[in-house]
Amino acid sequence: MTQNSAEIFPAHDGGPALDPDLLTGLAKLAVHVGLNLQQGQDLVMTTPASALPLARAITAEAYRAGAGLVTPIVSDRDMTLARFHHAQDASFDRAPDWLYDAMAKAYENGAARLALVGEDPFLLSHEDASKVGRANRANAAAYRPALAPIAGFHINWSIIACPTPDWAQRMFPDLAPQAAFDLLAQAIRMTARLDQPDPVAAWAAHNAHLAQRCARLNDARFDSLHFRGPGTDLRVGLADGHFWQGGASVARNGVRCNPNIPTEEVFTTPHAARVDGVARATKPLSHHGSLIEDITMRFENGRVVEARAARGDEVLQDMLSTDDGAARLGEVALVPHSSPVSRSGHLYFNTLFDENAASHIAMGQCYASCLEGGDGLSKEDIAARGGNESLIHVDWMIGSAQMDVDGLHAGGDTVALMRAGEWVDF
Amino acid sequence: MTQNSAEIFPAHDGGPALDPDLLTGLAKLAVHVGLNLQQGQDLVMTTPASALPLARAITAEAYRAGAGLVTPIVSDRDMTLARFHHAQDASFDRAPDWLYDAMAKAYENGAARLALVGEDPFLLSHEDASKVGRANRANAAAYRPALAPIAGFHINWSIIACPTPDWAQRMFPDLAPQAAFDLLAQAIRMTARLDQPDPVAAWAAHNAHLAQRCARLNDARFDSLHFRGPGTDLRVGLADGHFWQGGASVARNGVRCNPNIPTEEVFTTPHAARVDGVARATKPLSHHGSLIEDITMRFENGRVVEARAARGDEVLQDMLSTDDGAARLGEVALVPHSSPVSRSGHLYFNTLFDENAASHIAMGQCYASCLEGGDGLSKEDIAARGGNESLIHVDWMIGSAQMDVDGLHAGGDTVALMRAGEWVDF
Repeated sequence: MTQNSAEIFPAHDGGPALDPDLLTGLAKLAVHVGLNLQQGQDLVMTTPASALPLARAITAEAYRAGAGLVTPIVSDRDMTLARFHHAQDASFDRAPDWLYDAMAKAYENGAARLALVGEDPFLLSHEDASKVGRANRANAAAYRPALAPIAGFHINWSIIACPTPDWAQRMFPDLAPQAAFDLLAQAIRMTARLDQPDPVAAWAAHNAHLAQRCARLNDARFDSLHFRGPGTDLRVGLADGHFWQGGASVARNGVRCNPNIPTEEVFTTPHAARVDGVARATKPLSHHGSLIEDITMRFENGRVVEARAARGDEVLQDMLSTDDGAARLGEVALVPHSSPVSRSGHLYFNTLFDENAASHIAMGQCYASCLEGGDGLSKEDIAARGGNESLIHVDWMIGSAQMDVDGLHAGGDTVALMRAGEWVDF
Repeated sequence: MTQNSAEIFPAHDGGPALDPDLLTGLAKLAVHVGLNLQQGQDLVMTTPASALPLARAITAEAYRAGAGLVTPIVSDRDMTLARFHHAQDASFDRAPDWLYDAMAKAYENGAARLALVGEDPFLLSHEDASKVGRANRANAAAYRPALAPIAGFHINWSIIACPTPDWAQRMFPDLAPQAAFDLLAQAIRMTARLDQPDPVAAWAAHNAHLAQRCARLNDARFDSLHFRGPGTDLRVGLADGHFWQGGASVARNGVRCNPNIPTEEVFTTPHAARVDGVARATKPLSHHGSLIEDITMRFENGRVVEARAARGDEVLQDMLSTDDGAARLGEVALVPHSSPVSRSGHLYFNTLFDENAASHIAMGQCYASCLEGGDGLSKEDIAARGGNESLIHVDWMIGSAQMDVDGLHAGGDTVALMRAGEWVDF
C-alpha cells in the first residue's frame, strides 16, 4: 500500500488531449470505488496541473454524487523547478505548513481526500541533491498533520493516476510523445479495469476476491512465509497477531474505500527480528528520482547483513543506513504474476503501479493497521509484536513467474500459497 | 481602488501561447512594483488555471528576488461550472473556510499576497441567480479573515491581470479567438506601461506623479468637488479630514507596494450626506455578470433620489436597495481622459481596468484609509466624518473628454482641477 505524500514532484499541464471516456471512467472509479464519497461530504483533491483534465472530470462526478464542496490544491512542475533554479538557500528549509494544517482541518471537519498522481518521476533528478533532500524533509515535517488522518485511516481517501505527457516520456523514452502518451493511457485504462464491461462491478468482485484471500490467510495464522525463486530463498517471519489486508477497507469514519487504484496486493506486517536468507529484485526500483537495479540482500535475524545493487548501489546503501529500522522489513505483500499491472509489462516509476506488479517486501516502517488491535496500539506494543519502525518505507519487488511461496505453520506444516507466481487455492 | 475578492469566477487553461516578453515584463512588475516583495518573504498567489503561464513567470521572478516560498492557490472555470451544473442544493451555502483561514494565517506569518485576474467576467451569467448569490454570500463570509489583512493594508499585496482567451472573447465577441486574444494582450501590455523603455522606472515616475497630485489635493483641503459634463452636474462634498490616495502606498508591515496594476486614479472619501445634483455614466457598468448601460442618478443630501438605466435597470435598482448606504457614495476618484486604460478604448468588464479609464464615483462602502487617522478609526468616528457604510462598493464612470472638475473651498473659492478630462496644474 502506498500513502500520498505532499506533492513536491508536480508536472505539466497542456499536451495531448485525453480520451473523454477514459476521464469519465477514471472519475467514476475515483468517486464511487476509490473514495466512496458520501452524500454532502466535502472533498480535498491535490493534483498536479498536468492532471487538471482528470481533476475536472472528478469534480463533476463528485458533485453528481452529492459532494458538498470540492476544493483543488494544485501543484505545478514549472513552479517547483523555478524554486530549485532560482531560490535563495534559505528557501529550501521552508514548507507551506499553513496549507497542510488547513488540509488537516478540512479532514477533521469530515472532508475526504483524493490525490491525483501523474508527475514526472524524475523531475528533480538533475537538481542539487542536498537542496532536494532539505526541501523534502521540511515538507515532510510540515505535512505531518495532514498525513496523520490518512496514515491513521480516520477518513476515506484514495490515490488515482492521470496519464500525463511528462510521465509517459519517462516510461517510454524511445517513443514519440503521442505514442508514449497513448501507451500510458492504455496501461492506466487496463490496470484500472476500465477495459471490463462494468468497471465498478469488476472492482467489487476484485475487492471480494482480495477479501477472501485475506480471510484465508488470517484464518491460517502462518508463522512465516518462504519465498523461492531465481536468486531468492527467503523466510519472512510474520509479526505476532499480524493481520492481512487488501483491497477495500473501512476507514474510522465508517466509510469503506479503496485507498489505491489500482491495487492487487494482500499485505501484512513481518516480524522485524525473524527474516533470514537472500532476496533478489525482479524489477528495478525507482527511489527519489534514481533507479536502483539488480538489488540483492542477505538477511540474518531480521536485519540486512549484506546488500548490493548493480546500479544505484550508493543510493541503496544510503537508504539502508537512514536508521536502524531501515535495514529491516516493514511489509510483505503477495501479488500474482498475472495481475493487470504485471501483464502491462511496464515499469511506471511510481509505487502506486510498480508495487502491484509483483510480490514485494518493504524496508522500514510497518503498518499498525496490519496488526490485530491495529491503530490503538502504542509504539511499544507494536515493537513487542515484531512491528518495525523507521522513517522510510520502501517497497521492492521480488515476485516473478518463477516465484513459489509457502506458508509455514509454527509446528512445521507447510502450505503452498503460490506456484510459478500464481495463487494456489490452499 | 479594487480589492481582491475570493475567486468564484475562474477561467480556462490552455489556449493561445503568450508572448514570453509580456510574461516576463508582467512578472517583473508584479514582483518589484506591485508587491515590492522582500528578501525571504513568502508569497501566496491566487490564480485562475487559465493564468498559470503568468503564475509560473511570477514564481520564477519571485524566487530570483529572494522569495521564501511561493504557494499557488488555483481556481478553475470548469470546476466552478461543474458545481453549478451538478451539485445538490446544500452545496451552495458552503465555502472553503479552512483554506481562507489558512491564507489569513500565512499573512499573519508575514506572507505577501498576489491575485492574478483573467477570469471570464460572465462565466456564471447563465447560472441560477439565486445559487450564484448564495455561493457568493457563503464565500464572502468565509473569506472575511483572509480579506481583513488586505482591506486593512496589514501586508503588501497586489492584483495584476493575465490575458486569457475567455476574457478576450467577452471583450471582443466579433473577433476570431486569436485576434481577440492578441488585442487583449496588447492592451494589458500598454496599460501596464510595458511599452515604455524601462517599465519599472516608468511606474516609479507615475507613482511620483500620483503622489504629487495627492499632496496638492491634500494641501488644498477642498470642501467639495464640482463635476460638469454632458448629463452631469454634480457637487460631491468631501468627508471631514478626507485624505487623497493614489499609486504606491506603504502597508502596515512597512513595505511600499502598488495594490493595483494598472492604477491611474487618485481617490478619496466623499461625505455621505453632502452630494447633490445629477450624474450620467460615460461607460457601461459590468456588475455581477450583467451589463448596466446609460445610468443616470439624481442625488439630494447625499442620497440617490432617482436612478435609471437604459439597460439593466432592474439590476441597478436591486443594487441600490441592498442597504441604506448603497444609495450613497463611498469613493470619488479622478482619472485623466488620457490615461493608458482610457486610450486603449476598450471595456474590460473588470474593475481593475475599467475604473482606471475615467473619473468615477462608487456607491457604498468608503475606504477608512482615505480619512486622516485611517484604519484606527471606529465605525462611529468614520460615520461622524461623513464616511459611508454599506455591504457593496460599486464604481461607475462619469469622466470623459468633456468633463470639467473644480475644487471648491469652504469659503466659496473655486479652483479648476480638470478641463476637458485632463488635469490642470492648480
